[in-house]
Amino acid sequence: MAEKMTCGVAVVGCGTVGGATATLLTRDAEILRARTGLDLELRHVVDVNFDNARRLGLDESLFRTDLQAALDDPGVGVVCELIGGTSIAKTVIERALAAGKNVVTANKALLARHGAELWAAARRAGRCIAFEASCAGGIPIIRALSDGLIANRIDALYGIVNGTCNYILTAMTRQGQSYGEALAQAQADGLAEADPTLDVGGHDSAHKLAILAALAFGRQIDLDAIPVQGVDKLQLCDIQYGNELGYTVKLLAIAQRRRTGLSLRVGPAFISKQHPLAWVSGPFNAVSVYGHATGHTMYYGRGAGAYPTASAVVADIASLASGTALRAFEQLGIWPDRCERADQLSVEEVSSRYYLRLQAEDRPGVFARVAAILGQHEISISSLLQHEPPEEACPQAGVPVVITTHRAREGDVRQALTHIDALDSVMGSSVCIGIVDEHPEQL
Amino acid sequence: MAEKMTCGVAVVGCGTVGGATATLLTRDAEILRARTGLDLELRHVVDVNFDNARRLGLDESLFRTDLQAALDDPGVGVVCELIGGTSIAKTVIERALAAGKNVVTANKALLARHGAELWAAARRAGRCIAFEASCAGGIPIIRALSDGLIANRIDALYGIVNGTCNYILTAMTRQGQSYGEALAQAQADGLAEADPTLDVGGHDSAHKLAILAALAFGRQIDLDAIPVQGVDKLQLCDIQYGNELGYTVKLLAIAQRRRTGLSLRVGPAFISKQHPLAWVSGPFNAVSVYGHATGHTMYYGRGAGAYPTASAVVADIASLASGTALRAFEQLGIWPDRCERADQLSVEEVSSRYYLRLQAEDRPGVFARVAAILGQHEISISSLLQHEPPEEACPQAGVPVVITTHRAREGDVRQALTHIDALDSVMGSSVCIGIVDEHPEQL
Repeated sequence: MAEKMTCGVAVVGCGTVGGATATLLTRDAEILRARTGLDLELRHVVDVNFDNARRLGLDESLFRTDLQAALDDPGVGVVCELIGGTSIAKTVIERALAAGKNVVTANKALLARHGAELWAAARRAGRCIAFEASCAGGIPIIRALSDGLIANRIDALYGIVNGTCNYILTAMTRQGQSYGEALAQAQADGLAEADPTLDVGGHDSAHKLAILAALAFGRQIDLDAIPVQGVDKLQLCDIQYGNELGYTVKLLAIAQRRRTGLSLRVGPAFISKQHPLAWVSGPFNAVSVYGHATGHTMYYGRGAGAYPTASAVVADIASLASGTALRAFEQLGIWPDRCERADQLSVEEVSSRYYLRLQAEDRPGVFARVAAILGQHEISISSLLQHEPPEEACPQAGVPVVITTHRAREGDVRQALTHIDALDSVMGSSVCIGIVDEHPEQL
Repeated sequence: MAEKMTCGVAVVGCGTVGGATATLLTRDAEILRARTGLDLELRHVVDVNFDNARRLGLDESLFRTDLQAALDDPGVGVVCELIGGTSIAKTVIERALAAGKNVVTANKALLARHGAELWAAARRAGRCIAFEASCAGGIPIIRALSDGLIANRIDALYGIVNGTCNYILTAMTRQGQSYGEALAQAQADGLAEADPTLDVGGHDSAHKLAILAALAFGRQIDLDAIPVQGVDKLQLCDIQYGNELGYTVKLLAIAQRRRTGLSLRVGPAFISKQHPLAWVSGPFNAVSVYGHATGHTMYYGRGAGAYPTASAVVADIASLASGTALRAFEQLGIWPDRCERADQLSVEEVSSRYYLRLQAEDRPGVFARVAAILGQHEISISSLLQHEPPEEACPQAGVPVVITTHRAREGDVRQALTHIDALDSVMGSSVCIGIVDEHPEQL
């Protein structure tokens, strides 16, 4: 066996993930040594508050309030930035790289916005940033995209990458809870923050999509150009109508290679109950990737939580310590700092099938007018569902009319809905939800 | 960017997978160059028959009937053994290693039986054998076990790793076909060999289990000590009774860490319809892995076929060319040539819940006798289902009695069934199928 290499580790930020990382490195040192062939030695726990670190029983002699102590330690090979946020965390990473350390981070918000800049800084320093923990927690999806699937041109990627949203949608779908009830339940179960905006608004999913799509397509992604919708406006009745039509609603992070560019978006979407992503329930995450050679592969697991995320952090530490991560960073062409900017389609250019629901007066001629507007905008109707108004779920007056369309441009659909909503016989704002069909395999 | 490294490749065996590998390397050279940062140059296609190679339009100047030409070429860094079988293939790998080449193989039968010996030969030569394509085709499960999940003590692994069997079971479950009908359909669809024994008998799954369990647990696995049952004895009525009880039948490759050793087996098993593996249909494969830190992760995709498998072969070529595969082979402690032999539990020591079906005379006292025998063998009944005899599915006389048990030793269950089957009031041989419960996560 190769000599056991020792690699010193500094954990910066000893919250949920940092604490679990420190625990794995110490409590499970024997397991890690046997499996990795490495001595991963926790040498510094850097934070301003050590309540969590003490609660976990970490060795107080490791506690530092000054990052510099860790950076000055020549025995430290890897600095784990587990603070979160985009200001201090960025400085920590830049200082660590400048001090010649490799970096592990779980910070999706930071990488989604400043990834290319940080990767470039790492390259200049001859070091590497590993970030498996930034997307989908314990699921090795970064490795799948940058290693296992490297022989593929990736054609599409569909991800359920926010466990809070998936938990809420599962509760709405299975227990018939309203959005508000399901959110309260998620908060009570510790699966949603007191301020859940970043999760339920879809922005956390967009961060992950930006990172995953960059690797999948080998392009720099402009986070701000990704259209984002959350689950917070979703109504129970639409979930129920979708169910009748054979669909499950999921908050999907979607990336598709189109002839004219990359189509990226985050939002509630209907997906066939036959698709594996439809089965992913509760706080679990999953990412479906369509490669031109592999066809459909899917990666499933816990997308958050202390130990699942720490599992990814420690795997990254090991691959930095053994040198495989740096080798891949030096060799592969998919890292954003080496890639061109993506041609990202605007939301109007996105094309999809759509589910539309409008509340219409129940009298002759109304549907003819709606159909005429859709036809004028090149939108072809695929199916139609008209029900008596449900007693409680949708309290507005009128009859709900549910339409599914064939593939159409979102810009056309939005324009058509503006005209439809302006009709006297249509009440309120119509609902529009994308339908994601199984991506055709190219095998 | 690092200088584009060139790595010459020899494909030995130009059948389904070899042909697709050669096609990816030539037709898609631009994609591979952009993504891997490597020039993967196909320099030799070695076979005795070039019909398939010609059909694929491969360059005839690459065709060789003599392996030595490829081994003598200093420009060849990687030899891909894609012949299959365990005799010539083994010699090819040994000669390639002796000539200083790295090796890629998709050969599960060979690695399951001679893996430790071949890995040791690679280590002596300072080279590496990569084998992502040996298990579950295009799914990067070898990388998950040896890289992404390296920080975990793996507690259990459940795999659907034979697409032919899963296709047959899906047809039996969904279309109500008999085993014979479903097999004929699979053969007509090109998803089963004319002689399907290796697949339907469970041996192909056992090969993959031996490879996956070795990496998961860091132990040498004795292939011959893995109890194997196929799908070929499975009766439709059991699938239907299982369905009533909330289970789907799958051919599962099962590996569990027990206090007393590793419990490994292959056979039809009932799994809850709530478990993600129950959703895997048709020719798809999936592997659930339970790590002590990640909890449950699952990997899903096409487990066979030309391009999915070639995707894994080319990913291995790339990681050999870049050096990451060799680095991991040198560093990690999980490769079988470095590990101790596993303590493998005998089939009698395996413990599980069980589904039992017996055909009993429909008269008083019969069930009391059955229950008494189970009790004498420490087998506790969990549920009971008694139906009128179905009209067609189970032609034997008597009333089918379906029992599910609490966890019991398989040795006890077998003994009890011997006694039960010896009762005058019980006809024929009783059926026994394991029930796999969701593995408890340790998070």
